[in-house]
Amino acid sequence: MTSPERAASALDLGLLAPGRAGSRVEVETGDGAYLQGLLDAEAALARAQSSAGELPKQAAEAITSAAQADRFDLRQIALDARDGGNPVIPLVAALRAAVPDEAAAYVHRGATSQDIMDTATMLVAHRTRAVILADLDRVASALATLAARHRATPMAGRTLTQHAVPTTFGLKVAGWRSLVLDARDRLAALALPAQLGGAAGTLAALADSDEPAAVLRLVESFAAESGLEVPVLPWHVLRTPIAELGGALALTAGALGKFAADVLVLGRTEIAEIRQSGGGAGGSSAMPHKANPVNAALIAATARQVPALAAVLYSAMAAEDERPAGAWHAEWQNLRQALRLVGTATELAAELAEGLDARPEKMAANLAITGGLIVSERLVGALEPLLGRSAARTALTAASKEAADGASLSETLIEQPEIRALIDADRLSSDELADLLDPASYLGAAPHLVDRALRRAPRATT
Amino acid sequence: MTSPERAASALDLGLLAPGRAGSRVEVETGDGAYLQGLLDAEAALARAQSSAGELPKQAAEAITSAAQADRFDLRQIALDARDGGNPVIPLVAALRAAVPDEAAAYVHRGATSQDIMDTATMLVAHRTRAVILADLDRVASALATLAARHRATPMAGRTLTQHAVPTTFGLKVAGWRSLVLDARDRLAALALPAQLGGAAGTLAALADSDEPAAVLRLVESFAAESGLEVPVLPWHVLRTPIAELGGALALTAGALGKFAADVLVLGRTEIAEIRQSGGGAGGSSAMPHKANPVNAALIAATARQVPALAAVLYSAMAAEDERPAGAWHAEWQNLRQALRLVGTATELAAELAEGLDARPEKMAANLAITGGLIVSERLVGALEPLLGRSAARTALTAASKEAADGASLSETLIEQPEIRALIDADRLSSDELADLLDPASYLGAAPHLVDRALRRAPRATT
Amino acid sequence: MTSPERAASALDLGLLAPGRAGSRVEVETGDGAYLQGLLDAEAALARAQSSAGELPKQAAEAITSAAQADRFDLRQIALDARDGGNPVIPLVAALRAAVPDEAAAYVHRGATSQDIMDTATMLVAHRTRAVILADLDRVASALATLAARHRATPMAGRTLTQHAVPTTFGLKVAGWRSLVLDARDRLAALALPAQLGGAAGTLAALADSDEPAAVLRLVESFAAESGLEVPVLPWHVLRTPIAELGGALALTAGALGKFAADVLVLGRTEIAEIRQSGGGAGGSSAMPHKANPVNAALIAATARQVPALAAVLYSAMAAEDERPAGAWHAEWQNLRQALRLVGTATELAAELAEGLDARPEKMAANLAITGGLIVSERLVGALEPLLGRSAARTALTAASKEAADGASLSETLIEQPEIRALIDADRLSSDELADLLDPASYLGAAPHLVDRALRRAPRATT
Amino acid sequence: MTSPERAASALDLGLLAPGRAGSRVEVETGDGAYLQGLLDAEAALARAQSSAGELPKQAAEAITSAAQADRFDLRQIALDARDGGNPVIPLVAALRAAVPDEAAAYVHRGATSQDIMDTATMLVAHRTRAVILADLDRVASALATLAARHRATPMAGRTLTQHAVPTTFGLKVAGWRSLVLDARDRLAALALPAQLGGAAGTLAALADSDEPAAVLRLVESFAAESGLEVPVLPWHVLRTPIAELGGALALTAGALGKFAADVLVLGRTEIAEIRQSGGGAGGSSAMPHKANPVNAALIAATARQVPALAAVLYSAMAAEDERPAGAWHAEWQNLRQALRLVGTATELAAELAEGLDARPEKMAANLAITGGLIVSERLVGALEPLLGRSAARTALTAASKEAADGASLSETLIEQPEIRALIDADRLSSDELADLLDPASYLGAAPHLVDRALRRAPRATT
Repeated sequence: MTSPERAASALDLGLLAPGRAGSRVEVETGDGAYLQGLLDAEAALARAQSSAGELPKQAAEAITSAAQADRFDLRQIALDARDGGNPVIPLVAALRAAVPDEAAAYVHRGATSQDIMDTATMLVAHRTRAVILADLDRVASALATLAARHRATPMAGRTLTQHAVPTTFGLKVAGWRSLVLDARDRLAALALPAQLGGAAGTLAALADSDEPAAVLRLVESFAAESGLEVPVLPWHVLRTPIAELGGALALTAGALGKFAADVLVLGRTEIAEIRQSGGGAGGSSAMPHKANPVNAALIAATARQVPALAAVLYSAMAAEDERPAGAWHAEWQNLRQALRLVGTATELAAELAEGLDARPEKMAANLAITGGLIVSERLVGALEPLLGRSAARTALTAASKEAADGASLSETLIEQPEIRALIDADRLSSDELADLLDPASYLGAAPHLVDRALRRAPRATT
Repeated sequence: MTSPERAASALDLGLLAPGRAGSRVEVETGDGAYLQGLLDAEAALARAQSSAGELPKQAAEAITSAAQADRFDLRQIALDARDGGNPVIPLVAALRAAVPDEAAAYVHRGATSQDIMDTATMLVAHRTRAVILADLDRVASALATLAARHRATPMAGRTLTQHAVPTTFGLKVAGWRSLVLDARDRLAALALPAQLGGAAGTLAALADSDEPAAVLRLVESFAAESGLEVPVLPWHVLRTPIAELGGALALTAGALGKFAADVLVLGRTEIAEIRQSGGGAGGSSAMPHKANPVNAALIAATARQVPALAAVLYSAMAAEDERPAGAWHAEWQNLRQALRLVGTATELAAELAEGLDARPEKMAANLAITGGLIVSERLVGALEPLLGRSAARTALTAASKEAADGASLSETLIEQPEIRALIDADRLSSDELADLLDPASYLGAAPHLVDRALRRAPRATT
Repeated sequence: MTSPERAASALDLGLLAPGRAGSRVEVETGDGAYLQGLLDAEAALARAQSSAGELPKQAAEAITSAAQADRFDLRQIALDARDGGNPVIPLVAALRAAVPDEAAAYVHRGATSQDIMDTATMLVAHRTRAVILADLDRVASALATLAARHRATPMAGRTLTQHAVPTTFGLKVAGWRSLVLDARDRLAALALPAQLGGAAGTLAALADSDEPAAVLRLVESFAAESGLEVPVLPWHVLRTPIAELGGALALTAGALGKFAADVLVLGRTEIAEIRQSGGGAGGSSAMPHKANPVNAALIAATARQVPALAAVLYSAMAAEDERPAGAWHAEWQNLRQALRLVGTATELAAELAEGLDARPEKMAANLAITGGLIVSERLVGALEPLLGRSAARTALTAASKEAADGASLSETLIEQPEIRALIDADRLSSDELADLLDPASYLGAAPHLVDRALRRAPRATT
Repeated sequence: MTSPERAASALDLGLLAPGRAGSRVEVETGDGAYLQGLLDAEAALARAQSSAGELPKQAAEAITSAAQADRFDLRQIALDARDGGNPVIPLVAALRAAVPDEAAAYVHRGATSQDIMDTATMLVAHRTRAVILADLDRVASALATLAARHRATPMAGRTLTQHAVPTTFGLKVAGWRSLVLDARDRLAALALPAQLGGAAGTLAALADSDEPAAVLRLVESFAAESGLEVPVLPWHVLRTPIAELGGALALTAGALGKFAADVLVLGRTEIAEIRQSGGGAGGSSAMPHKANPVNAALIAATARQVPALAAVLYSAMAAEDERPAGAWHAEWQNLRQALRLVGTATELAAELAEGLDARPEKMAANLAITGGLIVSERLVGALEPLLGRSAARTALTAASKEAADGASLSETLIEQPEIRALIDADRLSSDELADLLDPASYLGAAPHLVDRALRRAPRATT
């Protein structure tokens, strides 16, 4: 193979990442986006230093103007990153070569590679977060509509895979939305600070030795020029921003994962309580009848991966010295992958939520499968005061056993001597029994919980 | 073996958990504490229902009065938990047996096992958090004193294991404290809600079918009786509280892990820049001279474990249905272990921080090891304007190579023709060169960063 | 609280570990078992040294005789472990106190804490493995019977939650067994070596300075006395045995997790294709009709946890120096928990497998749910040669759409003009079409794959 | 942005993966390599079917000849993968379009997407493994030479960061090699089977309905054509090969991680016991004197990441049904990333091992740092028989305290009354004491352990 062929063969173009390929989040997290982030950081530094009178305005302008990712040979920078173990070293050389000679000396002045790398990471995170938040809002909005529509649509509540008691589809959907808002608010509240500290976080090469405290203003100006928050301290080895971002992404993956897990169950061939239109109802290469829950499967796959990536990021906090030998490097690809997985899953979830609807008739049919057993809890509650705890349980257990073999619980119940006696004594009417057995009249506070949940609005974005 | 012997042999008494055995956090997270939490949840429910007029005051009092963990056979409950897969089922039976007959029917009324289990978990978390926060405050306070004392004590800043440029010990310590406060504020801000939803989260068995919305007041009352926050929705399968707790514990482990990682480096036999007194300076079974950094090692071990536990908790969010078959059960031991590890590590860290001091003379000696190379960055900055970028680097690289072989940089520098010429031309004096080579005069804004960091106070606890 | 009360409250008696409480694996992995392992290691060392003539036979006998866990105050040792960060230091003191004065000096002679701790860990692993292997054999055996019985019992094959094509229950079960054997063989093949190296792995304090190579024979003798394998090198920081054990346990958890995942799906109220008797069909605290798949849920919970624990163990391989400050300590509780979780899950799986059977009639009913769509792949294959690829797909897609709305595929197919024409032209008979549509006649090689899989026997245990 | 620009920006060209960019393993694991794997699988299937007489030889030849990755629009396939959630569906369409019409119908006949995807994954794993094994052999070989050279070179053994007793550099290096061979043998022994099962693993669409068992021969032939092993069963949901591969890669990462961890410690500015030439001694953007241990840092970063990726793969074993909705998809990127990280780390480790040497003089100097305390264990052993346990420890502890303050242990020892008395009584000579205090004469069996370890050869590759 020739060298360009080798490079082409080696690329990650998204072949193993259906849904990511072509997504907005892919663009915001690609190597090109990181390169632009690195260049933006260098340019912001030059402008901040220029404002502080530390370098000529023309130099800052020249650096800013040259700081466009598409002018650089990204692959060559990636290749040259090997010697120093990070891409900033070759990038600085390339940026110096790209500006007029008189500006070259002002490139990367006083900064260390990590200042640029961390600031670029925060810029990428900031830009990707905006995409994710917008898609989370789409999810929440579609789910709000769906929850309101089905606030009182009865369906089987299921615990440990078995029918338990009735619930409503609206309550289930309101729960999905609640999780999505939890994730959204958490992501939106994250602090994404600029990084500037110099070789060991003292700002020594950036500071005026006569008035070192003044350099703190330069940090503020750098953050403003970057569009990021001002750090309290250089955070080269105080990795809260990275770890918290990892945690928030794991939370988002989990929130979407709950949504997907339920969609996968409800869409099973035997259950079939939801209807999916639009995207994510994928075909099969061999079976023309299949409509696979592709979006839900890909979201579920994300929920399986991001927690492990977040764990790597939390682990990387235990970073020795003023820059660790490994912990920092372990963050880069993990954080990017977490952003990509979550961003893709959110886009897929928006599509899924917007195309989803309930099949109330199938929900009703499934509610009837157990012949009334699904309201046995209610019967216990109603019969205990009439029969006493022990007799009530005896009657119900006997009736349930027969019902489990296919009979209707209402018929088997009425044949139990204890129940018969109640009816004969006019302490229970057949109508009352029928109502007790109607799943749709045993929804508890479900519709009210939906109302309450829908009153929650997303927190204003910072 | 007899059965009690078998049980004794099977226990976890802390043999594999040095530091946890005997700690406060162990007591707050033991099986006894969980059992008490389960009982507290049952009692709070009875009291809340009594206030709502749903059960007699005497019954609530009887249940509350019986709800004392030491009256129950914990091991038997653990054994009996197998059939139903959770300890609440046998506990309810035991609690019913422990109250007067007329109160028995009011035990666990309308609740589901998960209501009690989740509420107990939050109670345990709430009580354990108080212990952890108090110890984190001890850590932060001891580190504040230390940072202030050494705000300007010079030491080598190290990146990728190599001396980079000088920093101050105070700045390093202020960074540790900053992380500890990040973790503290995050833990303190966590919402720890009560759980009440009934079999499928609709509150059906708790609600009055004529006025179901009124049950929301019961939830509020239950939360108040438990001493926990009011949930927006039953969160049986909306696991944000658990996942966020896991994340906050991983953040805390990471924060303490950074502290420990640095202590381990600084205490190495060859580096020896810190002095440890009090706890955690452990002996060796074979080598009487050794003073092992035991506390730091155990904290470091914690930082390696908690992120993985948190990952399990984040993964458990993708929980199908109204109660998942596995995801919920996977939380229990993981969350407890995360609480225990972090609680133990925090107590060890407090001891470590309170007994720690610097050895400034050794820091100074280490700063001199490279013969001045540690300020080469500064020399580049100072010489470039005088010699031009290229000549400055040439001179420095040549001098550095010799210095790396053991010579003093000040001597080798002065022998470089470029420098010689500067001095001869009176553009640089020997005194100026000596000052440029003094690590203690190249601390940048380090002391000011310490001041700034120490102005940060812990957020008020909720 | 008094101190003993505090200790009692702090214990882990299995309240959060249903299934583990009372299991054999709990006994083999409890603190008592570890303490015995530590004592066994000390006694084996004394005997090996006695055989080599390095200490009096009586001393070795006295040490061996004293080395019984129930003679020691385990909790006190756990408490005293704090100072040195491991339980061996206080244990050695206690063991010295427990033997006659003349034997005391021969306790732990030349060894380091890690020699004893690692050897004890391997002893615990060895003993626990035997329990796990026996239970895995029970699982495999029950599954073999079940697979043979149902080698040709048709059921729906499901992919991405949707009916795909038919398979047989026997093939599914044979797959479970295949995974169980993979795990079994992997566990059985693990090397579990004794550990002996002294303070830094050189065996210096154990060796005769005149003939140091002779100490290698002592290592062999120590391994023989322990009942463990001979290590090639002291493996204090060569953690392959621990990491591989972690990996094998994660594999086992995954193998059982697949079994549980399928049981959970097949047992869903709407699917109901399996019948569970015996253990693990748990009740509910509120709903008398429920038979929860408790064993499967607890196994599924295990499969969610062990991979994270294994990751901690793999990570701990990167251990600096001759004993790391944290990586080693991070192994202890993780490895024990992995053993316990897997051991419990295996016992639960044996119970589950032995009580499991199919409901062929329900499988047949479910196969019919899609009205024949489940064999659409086969129809494509059969019709393409007759109609051409494009026309065949057109006819099928049209028929499938109608069938998806509830019609029977055989009826809708026959109404398609392309099919009608085939029948009219005698190129396809109604009988042939009916046979093509019969799921039971489209099982491929499933029964033969079962036969092939069942010919695989577990590898002989080492 | 235009669409190609967006794609370019979105690519992963290795900017965040220094060392991977340009490596052999990158080429073997790139999207191009996966695409080739997919095509190779399709071609192998066609050839196998042709051999079985199921399709014309010309069709198989046409498919084989068209199956060249560089003829396909990889990005378009990645984009089109979204609908079905995997790249095989669009690839099959593209391959059909790329062959003569009469061959088109024979493409992907009877197979399912997962057959092709899994087989491609195994092909990529097989090819990447060859690269990794070759580099592991380079590492092992370089380390063997180094261990032999320094089999008896004394250095400080360090435990919990503190000098413990002497060891030899050769023993440390032999340990690294031992781990590398563990990993190598594990990787080499992995079974990498082809995958063929059809839609639900029954081989139904591939089998002749009259003689279904014959299809097992087709599976064998397919495996032979692919160059992979024959599976016992279709393993669509029996994920041992993937999980075991993940485990073996985590083991390799851990093995290399230990090597890197030690290199990082030994290369610290204050310790400086190794010399690195060749690659991986990276520069700094700001500090010309620095020679960063870049290779070791990047290897350490790998050891922090791969265990988490392996955990995801182990977790994915618990896959429901005949193809899970998420667990399978979660494998793809994780496995590829694990291969890339480990492959890159191995190449970096080879370079590192080949350029590494010891600085025995610095080792000797460091051994002297504690003024003799490093042999205190030996002194205990030697003095106890002469003085009794208690008096020996008293004398040594007193002497050690003074020595810890900077005095030489030999001088302080000789001043202890107990020692003085021994010398006066001619029970100990000054020469004997001096020899006891010489670290180089307290190496135990270290050189012999090196010899023993070096006798181990890599197992023959399967």
